[in-house]
Amino acid sequence: MKKIINSVESLLEESLTGFSKAHGDIVAFNRQPHFIYRIKESNSAKVALVSGGGSGHEPLHTGLVGQGMLDAACPGQIFTSPTPDQMMAAADKVNQGEGVLFIVKNYAGDVMNFEIAAEMLDCEHATVLIDDDVSLPKDHSTGRRGVAGTLIVEKIVGAAAEAGASLLECKALGDRVNAATASMGVALSSCTVPALGQPTFDIGDNEIEMGVGIHGERGREPMDLSSASEMVSHLTKAIDEELKPQAGQQVLLHINGFGATPLMELYLMYELASEFWQEKGVVISRSLVGNYTTSLDMAGASITLTLLDEELITLWDSPVHTANLRWGC
Amino acid sequence: MKKIINSVESLLEESLTGFSKAHGDIVAFNRQPHFIYRIKESNSAKVALVSGGGSGHEPLHTGLVGQGMLDAACPGQIFTSPTPDQMMAAADKVNQGEGVLFIVKNYAGDVMNFEIAAEMLDCEHATVLIDDDVSLPKDHSTGRRGVAGTLIVEKIVGAAAEAGASLLECKALGDRVNAATASMGVALSSCTVPALGQPTFDIGDNEIEMGVGIHGERGREPMDLSSASEMVSHLTKAIDEELKPQAGQQVLLHINGFGATPLMELYLMYELASEFWQEKGVVISRSLVGNYTTSLDMAGASITLTLLDEELITLWDSPVHTANLRWGC
Repeated sequence: MKKIINSVESLLEESLTGFSKAHGDIVAFNRQPHFIYRIKESNSAKVALVSGGGSGHEPLHTGLVGQGMLDAACPGQIFTSPTPDQMMAAADKVNQGEGVLFIVKNYAGDVMNFEIAAEMLDCEHATVLIDDDVSLPKDHSTGRRGVAGTLIVEKIVGAAAEAGASLLECKALGDRVNAATASMGVALSSCTVPALGQPTFDIGDNEIEMGVGIHGERGREPMDLSSASEMVSHLTKAIDEELKPQAGQQVLLHINGFGATPLMELYLMYELASEFWQEKGVVISRSLVGNYTTSLDMAGASITLTLLDEELITLWDSPVHTANLRWGC
Repeated sequence: MKKIINSVESLLEESLTGFSKAHGDIVAFNRQPHFIYRIKESNSAKVALVSGGGSGHEPLHTGLVGQGMLDAACPGQIFTSPTPDQMMAAADKVNQGEGVLFIVKNYAGDVMNFEIAAEMLDCEHATVLIDDDVSLPKDHSTGRRGVAGTLIVEKIVGAAAEAGASLLECKALGDRVNAATASMGVALSSCTVPALGQPTFDIGDNEIEMGVGIHGERGREPMDLSSASEMVSHLTKAIDEELKPQAGQQVLLHINGFGATPLMELYLMYELASEFWQEKGVVISRSLVGNYTTSLDMAGASITLTLLDEELITLWDSPVHTANLRWGC
């Protein structure tokens, strides 16, 4: 295993220390228990947004804490759920009396731990569950996984909260954006979790994993290595079948790298995916291309589509000031 | 070779097409010859900043075109200099009568081609040559390479140009920032150039390349794989010996990933590098951590330090609105 680390045990804490120093104008790091929180409060009390999950997907979620987005993020160990004490401490820290909204990716450990935390919280709270990965069928036993669409929910609900939406409004909006969002990814390589020291799954030199999860979970099917056009066609068709955008529909198109795929390849995917939907008359109003929901050093990428309306566009465009997503301020 | 591409021949053009579509509010793509240019002009005529170089380092340079930074970028094929006709056409397009400043990384091909373009240009022009890589000695036969410090020069000079600095002032400022900047990197893996189809250099499972260049050029020495602290210590010492920052000196610390290294490891490097300089009393006033000057899918990272003063801090903080660097607007 080749990594820039000192030890498996110290990596997360040392990295979070560096993160909070590099962005000391935006966030602070609570060490016991671990969470990252926003230091500049909004002008008036607002609903507090708290997310989290296993580490290794950076900038999700820690890099998305700040004005117009999350109030706190609870990082677990790599690919491991954070614990309820982290979520409770984070919620206590950022609660301003308007309630706490948890944004949770649909994985058994995350769901269970956020539920335990929610039950023990004194304050008003609600949870938005993200399950945008269409590589699994809708009726899969544990439901669909939450992947790169999470960022879109966090951005849009974050803007609404900043603008004074109530807890119930934020919860309804989050559910609505999640339902309007679909994602699917393809891996060209596995990732290597430091604590394991070897690739999470085997993949042949001429093989790709279509429908891979963001922890390297096997996807729909291993396939032969094919052209970018064929890979993108698989992904866009699956997403299109789910959301069925009509001609004239405005959408946000997000190409998300898993960590080891050059921007040049991501922009090629953007071009191919945008051609697919433009031919159907779908209007790509907003775009996001880059490494946002990563899987450590996995090569590959996912495509996410969100159906937009004027309200969602306004919220997407609203100012955001986090370590890794910033515009309008 | 596993890449998300259709063909080696079409990759660059398809990718630039996608890039210009995804960021159509900021840039446009000139196809014949290839260059990316800023579409929103500043309110008053200003010095035009033109950079470029081989592709494969994205977001450098195309992702840095826009308000407060570059006016145009000329992308060559991967790791191959752009040609003089690209630079001349780009300069013609963005010249507003206040002169053109070329920002060129010190590689023989880039230097030669930008010189040819400059000689054939009718308008007033000047060139800033970037040679921030301290892995080579100062008296190396072809000089030192230009690496991740290029972004810092482009940002600071871009802000000055936007604020109305003259061509001579921009040239002098660029030279000053370049002289105040030092970088060095370490690779854990090679990168794979699509046209070659195999890794650029061999590297053992327990080996790292200390002082690597951004095209996978061999560095100072191959070394045994070591801890993050040892790697960072090598890099920071070499940079410190070059710039010799004194206690109280304000600096910008930039940790740059080469493409396949997770943010978690980059922030760990930030923590270790910031500790090194803080112990000497150096004041880290500004920070930038992420994948900005990449080498396709190479694993590894570089450290860049720039000595700051109040003028440079103000210019660094000035609004910038490009595809991949944005704040204040």
